[in-house]
Amino acid sequence: MKQTDGGVTAAQGFKAFGLRAGIKPGKTNKDMAMVWSDTPAAYAAVFTTNKVKAAPVLWDKEIADKGNTVRAIVINSGIANACTGEQGKKDTETTALLAADALSVSKEEVLVASTGVIGAPLPMDVIEKGIKELSGKLQSDIESGTLAAEAIMTTDTKKKEIAVEFELGGKRVTMGGMCKGSGMIHPNMGTMLAFVTTDAAISADLLKKALKEDVKDTFNMVSVDGDTSTNDTLMVLANGCAKNAPVTAEGEDFETFKKALHFINEYLAKRIAEDGEGATRLFETTVLNAKTKEDARILARSVISSNLTKAAIFGKDANWGRILCALGYSGGDFVPDKTDVTIKSDKGEIQLVAGGMAASYSEDVASEILGADAVTAVIDVHDGDFSATAWGCDLTFDYVTINADYRS
Amino acid sequence: MKQTDGGVTAAQGFKAFGLRAGIKPGKTNKDMAMVWSDTPAAYAAVFTTNKVKAAPVLWDKEIADKGNTVRAIVINSGIANACTGEQGKKDTETTALLAADALSVSKEEVLVASTGVIGAPLPMDVIEKGIKELSGKLQSDIESGTLAAEAIMTTDTKKKEIAVEFELGGKRVTMGGMCKGSGMIHPNMGTMLAFVTTDAAISADLLKKALKEDVKDTFNMVSVDGDTSTNDTLMVLANGCAKNAPVTAEGEDFETFKKALHFINEYLAKRIAEDGEGATRLFETTVLNAKTKEDARILARSVISSNLTKAAIFGKDANWGRILCALGYSGGDFVPDKTDVTIKSDKGEIQLVAGGMAASYSEDVASEILGADAVTAVIDVHDGDFSATAWGCDLTFDYVTINADYRS
Repeated sequence: MKQTDGGVTAAQGFKAFGLRAGIKPGKTNKDMAMVWSDTPAAYAAVFTTNKVKAAPVLWDKEIADKGNTVRAIVINSGIANACTGEQGKKDTETTALLAADALSVSKEEVLVASTGVIGAPLPMDVIEKGIKELSGKLQSDIESGTLAAEAIMTTDTKKKEIAVEFELGGKRVTMGGMCKGSGMIHPNMGTMLAFVTTDAAISADLLKKALKEDVKDTFNMVSVDGDTSTNDTLMVLANGCAKNAPVTAEGEDFETFKKALHFINEYLAKRIAEDGEGATRLFETTVLNAKTKEDARILARSVISSNLTKAAIFGKDANWGRILCALGYSGGDFVPDKTDVTIKSDKGEIQLVAGGMAASYSEDVASEILGADAVTAVIDVHDGDFSATAWGCDLTFDYVTINADYRS
Repeated sequence: MKQTDGGVTAAQGFKAFGLRAGIKPGKTNKDMAMVWSDTPAAYAAVFTTNKVKAAPVLWDKEIADKGNTVRAIVINSGIANACTGEQGKKDTETTALLAADALSVSKEEVLVASTGVIGAPLPMDVIEKGIKELSGKLQSDIESGTLAAEAIMTTDTKKKEIAVEFELGGKRVTMGGMCKGSGMIHPNMGTMLAFVTTDAAISADLLKKALKEDVKDTFNMVSVDGDTSTNDTLMVLANGCAKNAPVTAEGEDFETFKKALHFINEYLAKRIAEDGEGATRLFETTVLNAKTKEDARILARSVISSNLTKAAIFGKDANWGRILCALGYSGGDFVPDKTDVTIKSDKGEIQLVAGGMAASYSEDVASEILGADAVTAVIDVHDGDFSATAWGCDLTFDYVTINADYRS
């Protein structure tokens, strides 16, 4: 497997485009994107667990439940189409219908994703204009994929895309993806959306299985602020254009496919954490030697989600008491007295905790290590064989600024 | 029942004192307190659910489990005596022993509470000096109770104490309390500690029952930052000095006692929320008409715990999408489409959400209402008969300052 250029258009048979339709305020921000597959693509997706689900989430979920193939995705940023009642559902269906007409497919082959302000209605005249323009401009080049990756951004400071090539059944297969989100949610201009495309031939059932398993260790291990959006969506489209012998059973090919999917998902998930609202650094936590995989995940996630730990990371303060505290209230199983904590970055590595108590270390050296752009806490609980990693960011003044002052 | 002056020394037969022993940095901050009961007091307590428990928590819990009566509480601020291993346990026992010697009681009659930096050892010479001085200065006047309330503060900006008088079996009974905490935890200088004293005669079993039930709707409905301390402790001492016919069975007297305890606990819990680290306003959320009591509690607590909602309250932004979002991921049962949201304060009242969608309201009026020192969100889910209220505060720049910069 090797990393390559591009994102959603890297795989064969996929086209995309992104442009400004006029949903967002201002005059220059792109706010609509479209992704297209030349052939019917197997489709798998996971969605927000929030009880309040945006209209496009309900639409995409219904298509996923039916198990049909799909051809296109229409995405808008600026308005989330959440808490918009029956009108919101109609607007999502109209969006799919308009795209279906423009692309000569059926509306059940069109997925829809929205991100932005909760409670506001979609400006359907703008959406209609955008769809017409997008469907005439779809291209398979890398640049067009990048335009799509830019058009789905909201409070993101960087576009997020990635692609890899690997061999599957003797054929060269490509998988690429893009995502947006600088928090699990920022309900004015928020949500985590991710789109992965591949030219691999794989059955819908195995695609779903691979996605469902992998998301536990990638996107579900990211937190910026602990708030889960009404719109979170991660979808994978596999169109078979690579002409590999279709993956229809578990085995070596399926493992290879899963490895590529994991690479893409982990890369994109980390970019979301790193670009968290107001973040100055990526904060990674690895829990080693937990009793079960789920304990490892719970423990790791609790540390990167703790406001106090996140504020300490911002302040370059080796405040290990907050880390032990977050482990302690997580609900994950571990023995405090057996726990070691080490922090590391490209500036060095130092042990803070040995057997649940302070190790002998220099606060100055620790602070220096915590000053890097990416910081990892390695927590060895010496209690079993399972490990997990979670990704978050620091809690900063800018987080408060972005979320207190946005509409005022 | 009527509110009266004072705190832990308001009830008959209780003495207290607070002073500077020299645990905290600086020269003026008080850091040790003692509470004394002239007669053996029935004792009930609830403790942190954190798996990492400070040494004094383990000590007090053992005494609670044995069900013995108690005579004294020794409290220090500045150092939490958490994550301090076997030495920490010895230090707590020594603290109890020193106080027991000075007061001529047994060490099992002495409770210990600590709050402050995690991981540091207690300076036992300073503690010893403090205990000797405190035991000679115990007084039953209101001012001595206030000195104790001041000595247990850490990042608190205000002392927190309250007392009430009520009639029980024809006798005048008094109950008073003090607490500290401006967050569920601030592991450098943190923790929620609360102490309630009453001269009511009541069996230990009923005291425990009353406390266990009431804490669900008072202290457990408060959150400042979602982090649960290693040291959280709430204890109630009842010494019977009011000479009422002892409350030994459920019935009218027990209900009267519970009402007083609820008043004290709710008052103290709200003071903690209001004095949350960096807070500029108290943020109360009441959920009405939920399917079960537990659903009402879960829903209310999720809203006051949401970083995004807290940041919006700081920014006086009527961002109801964040409130619906927090309800949605809480795990509590409700129907989004039936939900109404109204905000109110001493500056007015306005409905933001009707049936899960935007009501017609003025952003300017809403912002004006949110500018008050105390703001309430009333969420009617129209789904049953149960209600609950939770208390939190806004998320501000100062929260980040306090928690990022404390040790740097």
